[in-house]
Amino acid sequence: MPIDPNAPLVLTAYRWVPSFVHGLVRDVRVRWACEEAGLAYAEDLIDVRHKPDGYEAVQPWKQVPALRDGDVRYFESGAILLHIAEKDARLLPPAGQARADTMSWFIAALNSVDPGAIELNNVNFFSRGQDWAEQRMPSLIEGLAKKLEPVAHRLAQRDWLAGEFSIADVLMIHVLMAIDSASDLISSQPTLAAYVERGKARPAWQQALADQLAAFERNTPKEN
Amino acid sequence: MPIDPNAPLVLTAYRWVPSFVHGLVRDVRVRWACEEAGLAYAEDLIDVRHKPDGYEAVQPWKQVPALRDGDVRYFESGAILLHIAEKDARLLPPAGQARADTMSWFIAALNSVDPGAIELNNVNFFSRGQDWAEQRMPSLIEGLAKKLEPVAHRLAQRDWLAGEFSIADVLMIHVLMAIDSASDLISSQPTLAAYVERGKARPAWQQALADQLAAFERNTPKEN
Repeated sequence: MPIDPNAPLVLTAYRWVPSFVHGLVRDVRVRWACEEAGLAYAEDLIDVRHKPDGYEAVQPWKQVPALRDGDVRYFESGAILLHIAEKDARLLPPAGQARADTMSWFIAALNSVDPGAIELNNVNFFSRGQDWAEQRMPSLIEGLAKKLEPVAHRLAQRDWLAGEFSIADVLMIHVLMAIDSASDLISSQPTLAAYVERGKARPAWQQALADQLAAFERNTPKEN
Repeated sequence: MPIDPNAPLVLTAYRWVPSFVHGLVRDVRVRWACEEAGLAYAEDLIDVRHKPDGYEAVQPWKQVPALRDGDVRYFESGAILLHIAEKDARLLPPAGQARADTMSWFIAALNSVDPGAIELNNVNFFSRGQDWAEQRMPSLIEGLAKKLEPVAHRLAQRDWLAGEFSIADVLMIHVLMAIDSASDLISSQPTLAAYVERGKARPAWQQALADQLAAFERNTPKEN
């Protein structure tokens, strides 16, 4: 149970968000990594519609997550995961090909797969019904399917991207969950679907998700 | 002059590409970081249209760059830059807020700015003339302009994103160059335009670019 109000790690997350993004807001990645590493963290919950004054000095785009570790502040879930992982070799091997594989697949999730996932979520949720969005969908799905092929190929022979479970899996599985929320690209691909299920079966993921949802539950606005 | 055929670092890049992507192919980021750190590297040049057999085991999407460091192989320019930077504190401070700022802005370039740049380049170069691409352009430019605001704000008071020049700047400046190749978002923003110019003025960038272009020049197909 790593949530501890006195922990030196302080995670900034939202108090509440609408249900269609439950489990998708990116602080859950950090919660997951902390649970895997057994690292306690405190929560700093902020309002999604009314950000604290000066919050742009903490997170330039006024998004979450952000992390404070003692006096040091990080933003971007990818940077925070790397910082957490440097504390625990289980999440990022210290050297050799195991580290190289973890880092390469970790960055691949951020920069080769997530850009298509971001566009898909924009087309599907935020631009839905617009002419261009409807026209774009087929080629976007086709391009994303091609991006996912090497990921499935990699996972055909192994449970996790880089040998043992690592931050590469935290990130890739969470990106695949975002794709799954807006398409059937994951459910139609048995290797990828099974990989996401393996992630969801981990007690650390279940605790991380429960803790994100618990905050939303506690702080549901009265009008909703 | 870090190119050395006997160096333990071996960078995979293309022998030749068409001129509209000169300077944009991502091996130039690695060349730039190596030049900044004074690290020698050898070139392993491959054909963009006919990849070597089995190349998908080196780079899952059969793209460049890839890096071999002795026996260890990396792919994804972001992962390679982190590996290079771990060898030289000038590119990535070892601890404290300076490291946190560098890592946060480094990942921001990859995951907050580059996804929009990737979509822009797709719309502008690879999907040009398609109905949806024409319709998408205004909202895409508007969204990207908003993403760039905090970057310009950060750079209004400083030359580089995280104090001294770092891998965050290598990545962010190269992403901005890609945006500049497809829009006037950079040239219309004096702070960002000046930042890119500061990057281009660095001898390490000039050498990196010259070395990428020299390979293309040497290997221009006869029919072109």
